[in-house]
Amino acid sequence: MNYELTAREGDLIQLVGLTHKHFIFILKSGDEFHSHRGIVKHDDLIGKTWGKQVFSHTGAPFFLLQPSLADILNDLPRSTQILYPKDIGYILIQMGVTSGQTVMEAGTGSGSMTTALATAVGENGKVISYERNAEFQRLAQKNLERLGLASRVTFKLGDIADGFDITDADAFFLDVQNPFDYIEQVRNALKPGGFFCTLVPTFNQVEKVLNGLRKTQFAFVEVCELLLRYYKTNPSRIRPADRMVAHTGFLIFARKMEETTDPRGAQLAQEIIGIEDEI
Amino acid sequence: MNYELTAREGDLIQLVGLTHKHFIFILKSGDEFHSHRGIVKHDDLIGKTWGKQVFSHTGAPFFLLQPSLADILNDLPRSTQILYPKDIGYILIQMGVTSGQTVMEAGTGSGSMTTALATAVGENGKVISYERNAEFQRLAQKNLERLGLASRVTFKLGDIADGFDITDADAFFLDVQNPFDYIEQVRNALKPGGFFCTLVPTFNQVEKVLNGLRKTQFAFVEVCELLLRYYKTNPSRIRPADRMVAHTGFLIFARKMEETTDPRGAQLAQEIIGIEDEI
Amino acid sequence: MNYELTAREGDLIQLVGLTHKHFIFILKSGDEFHSHRGIVKHDDLIGKTWGKQVFSHTGAPFFLLQPSLADILNDLPRSTQILYPKDIGYILIQMGVTSGQTVMEAGTGSGSMTTALATAVGENGKVISYERNAEFQRLAQKNLERLGLASRVTFKLGDIADGFDITDADAFFLDVQNPFDYIEQVRNALKPGGFFCTLVPTFNQVEKVLNGLRKTQFAFVEVCELLLRYYKTNPSRIRPADRMVAHTGFLIFARKMEETTDPRGAQLAQEIIGIEDEI
Amino acid sequence: MNYELTAREGDLIQLVGLTHKHFIFILKSGDEFHSHRGIVKHDDLIGKTWGKQVFSHTGAPFFLLQPSLADILNDLPRSTQILYPKDIGYILIQMGVTSGQTVMEAGTGSGSMTTALATAVGENGKVISYERNAEFQRLAQKNLERLGLASRVTFKLGDIADGFDITDADAFFLDVQNPFDYIEQVRNALKPGGFFCTLVPTFNQVEKVLNGLRKTQFAFVEVCELLLRYYKTNPSRIRPADRMVAHTGFLIFARKMEETTDPRGAQLAQEIIGIEDEI
Repeated sequence: MNYELTAREGDLIQLVGLTHKHFIFILKSGDEFHSHRGIVKHDDLIGKTWGKQVFSHTGAPFFLLQPSLADILNDLPRSTQILYPKDIGYILIQMGVTSGQTVMEAGTGSGSMTTALATAVGENGKVISYERNAEFQRLAQKNLERLGLASRVTFKLGDIADGFDITDADAFFLDVQNPFDYIEQVRNALKPGGFFCTLVPTFNQVEKVLNGLRKTQFAFVEVCELLLRYYKTNPSRIRPADRMVAHTGFLIFARKMEETTDPRGAQLAQEIIGIEDEI
Repeated sequence: MNYELTAREGDLIQLVGLTHKHFIFILKSGDEFHSHRGIVKHDDLIGKTWGKQVFSHTGAPFFLLQPSLADILNDLPRSTQILYPKDIGYILIQMGVTSGQTVMEAGTGSGSMTTALATAVGENGKVISYERNAEFQRLAQKNLERLGLASRVTFKLGDIADGFDITDADAFFLDVQNPFDYIEQVRNALKPGGFFCTLVPTFNQVEKVLNGLRKTQFAFVEVCELLLRYYKTNPSRIRPADRMVAHTGFLIFARKMEETTDPRGAQLAQEIIGIEDEI
Repeated sequence: MNYELTAREGDLIQLVGLTHKHFIFILKSGDEFHSHRGIVKHDDLIGKTWGKQVFSHTGAPFFLLQPSLADILNDLPRSTQILYPKDIGYILIQMGVTSGQTVMEAGTGSGSMTTALATAVGENGKVISYERNAEFQRLAQKNLERLGLASRVTFKLGDIADGFDITDADAFFLDVQNPFDYIEQVRNALKPGGFFCTLVPTFNQVEKVLNGLRKTQFAFVEVCELLLRYYKTNPSRIRPADRMVAHTGFLIFARKMEETTDPRGAQLAQEIIGIEDEI
Repeated sequence: MNYELTAREGDLIQLVGLTHKHFIFILKSGDEFHSHRGIVKHDDLIGKTWGKQVFSHTGAPFFLLQPSLADILNDLPRSTQILYPKDIGYILIQMGVTSGQTVMEAGTGSGSMTTALATAVGENGKVISYERNAEFQRLAQKNLERLGLASRVTFKLGDIADGFDITDADAFFLDVQNPFDYIEQVRNALKPGGFFCTLVPTFNQVEKVLNGLRKTQFAFVEVCELLLRYYKTNPSRIRPADRMVAHTGFLIFARKMEETTDPRGAQLAQEIIGIEDEI
């Protein structure tokens, strides 16, 4: 990323026009940006200070900005269901994803979580991302390349029912329709103590995932959801927005624990698996 | 961070005992961990596989784990109000905090956001954190040192009413009781297009911050809050938890825009400042 | 209301057609119901069992139903902002509105709360409803007449700044844009211990109402809001609806207390006015 | 209920003391109210204006009030899980419970919904309430008697698996642990078009109820929940309360429809049963 005060060739930039219309693309000398509000030459943007207004050949105004990760994720060309920044931010924190780690994901989808993971593990980290749909994978790869993050990602094509050839992942984000069918495989891919997360839209899926996690000795199971409520920003009429996104999905977190044979530890094992909740 | 399968000297580890009691500390050969559930020798933990149970001299069981960032933040010795992982995760994503950036914060408090920022900017990034209470600062410094993150942080002591000697911060998190008094100073510290965020508990503060942001030409103002709802995890009785944290704070985001003199851009400038919302 | 099993002349009925289109009207022998889905003769509905399907002359199907109060309120011809059943139900319960009472309201608006109040006070109760816009009042009157509730309501036209000629209302629902300007007048209209409620959309209004209530010795002040979240009803894919109404308004409740001169009661008076919350 | 300005013998009254301690009882000449804050003679309360302070023999202050329905419900001596006013208010509105109706309920529990229903159907209405636990029923009966509402209620003891001897109830509130086992019986007790409601705490129960409703041709099925969020009332520090009740139960509403044999109505029948949601 460019931390200078001005836009440079090769930068990923965002133009924001009237009615909050925005466009994210890479600056390349000689290229032109075309929209129904007119043309802007890339060379007129290169060297310009961030946060300035620029104008198309028809006089339409745009602000020149660097997109945030949230902007990029919201704008990602997509073939599949999207992940929301509110969920992504929380998943990264809860799974403790940080620079230098090896983290896994299935499926890749359009690559929005791949992008977030690749950003979080940094230059020395590694993301291994599985997808069984070749077309989805191609789009995700293109998305990651455009963002300069592809080198951190190993894209794998195939059916995860067969398992994974990794056994020491720090964290695994499982984003498929039937996550409950692959709990065993994910467990084998994680290092001891490793973090598991899945996001499912329906209660029926939550039920099946919980049963699967319990059967395979995952511990510290948490089910939660995040609700994001916007407020109108006129200071003399502050109030919640009239409508909101009411549901993206239920988040389920867990950690891989080693089985306990020592009888002294049986109660603790039950407790962290969540069995004491039933009483 | 240690990405091996076993605990090593110098690692930050977490022991989890019965009734979800947990303890985070650094492993040091020769040391002992003392709790009312007995003693565990550090040397008995070094070399042990993550996710295993260990036992104190009285036979009390503990699981040996690496703490996630969320675990660490929840456990941070604190002198001030805490920030919740749900808010921290969203702030990092929305402000686009990523490796290599220079980001700022005031006040430091106990260092929980400092920890999150230092983690996100990575080894090549920089966090500049202001605090006017020397005691708070000392605790935060100690917290960051323990986590091995202190080298990424410049701690500054003083009154931020005097402004900052930086003018190109990528992002600024303002966490003080009266953020509305420092909007101008923060604006000067940010690079063009830079991200602003503050978190305030009351509506009255939201009102004042919104007025301040509008006066100083901040744009893309968003006010929101995140609600985290937990669910009980017994698969045959899935339901939301009976009680929840109903409020941590309102998040206010904005970006620094350059003033517009070109009349063609006046409408867009008003729009992104949010003035069209009033009608 | 008709508690027989079949529809009778004079009944308020509801026809529900495809895509949840519904129509509420009164049955009158000789009349015809016209919609773009064809014609249904009222005489074909009279004597029909509730819950049955009927067909228009073009063969379009409709279910014949008695509308609930919620159906009626949602369908009320309206000139103003609507009140939601979730809020109305809670207001009635919290203000203890029950049969035989004298309750007041300002402004009448389209008469949705008037309808709910007139229903709750029953045949021996009385609703006194103020409105300063004659056109709104006329519509509300028509709405109440259609529902057979007009005899329970005294409609008054005028500016409530001048106060009210009642001094013993059991409850007062104040539904105007600037409720904070009429707290004193409402206090004078209420009997000792009487219930006050207002609903305002913005925080700024809440602030002003709270200041007004405190100045006039109202007690047991409560501010709250109700969020109604729908779930999808396919039993194999149960999940919250994707979007929801995120805000209708903040509800503010209070009760009229008599001033205390006895010094032994000063602390209790402060407590129920809510002043101890400030510390 | 007494709509005078002063308390009279036989009135149900509420005394509110310091720290929001409150007591609901019936005034009876010669009786005494005892609490650890001293004694108040009923004769000192009879004839007193509502909203006034009174003092115990030790000088402890109390406010004299008429309790609202919500106050009464919150205070009801209980042997079972409570129903919250927020849910009760919405249920009454959604089921269209109004004066003169015949409504049913199972189980009676402590009689909180019985109280609300008896209040809503008025003097000419009727509540038929089933309970299989004789002890619960006795407490509920006592509660209703104290409130002067017992004459509107027929209490029945027995197992509802055997069905009901009523076939034309306007509405039925089913409040038992396994409501899905009695859908058929409830259907037979309702008049055509009649309203059904149940409240269940877990998703697993929602699933079973939805399956039961679909099998028995109930229509207009709605699943929802109400969240009540309180705000702190200090006007210079307005903010949501720190914690809240996050879950009371899922409300499920439906209406009894007659089966359709006419093929022209098949699509509409499917639509209102909710089957089109599945696609």
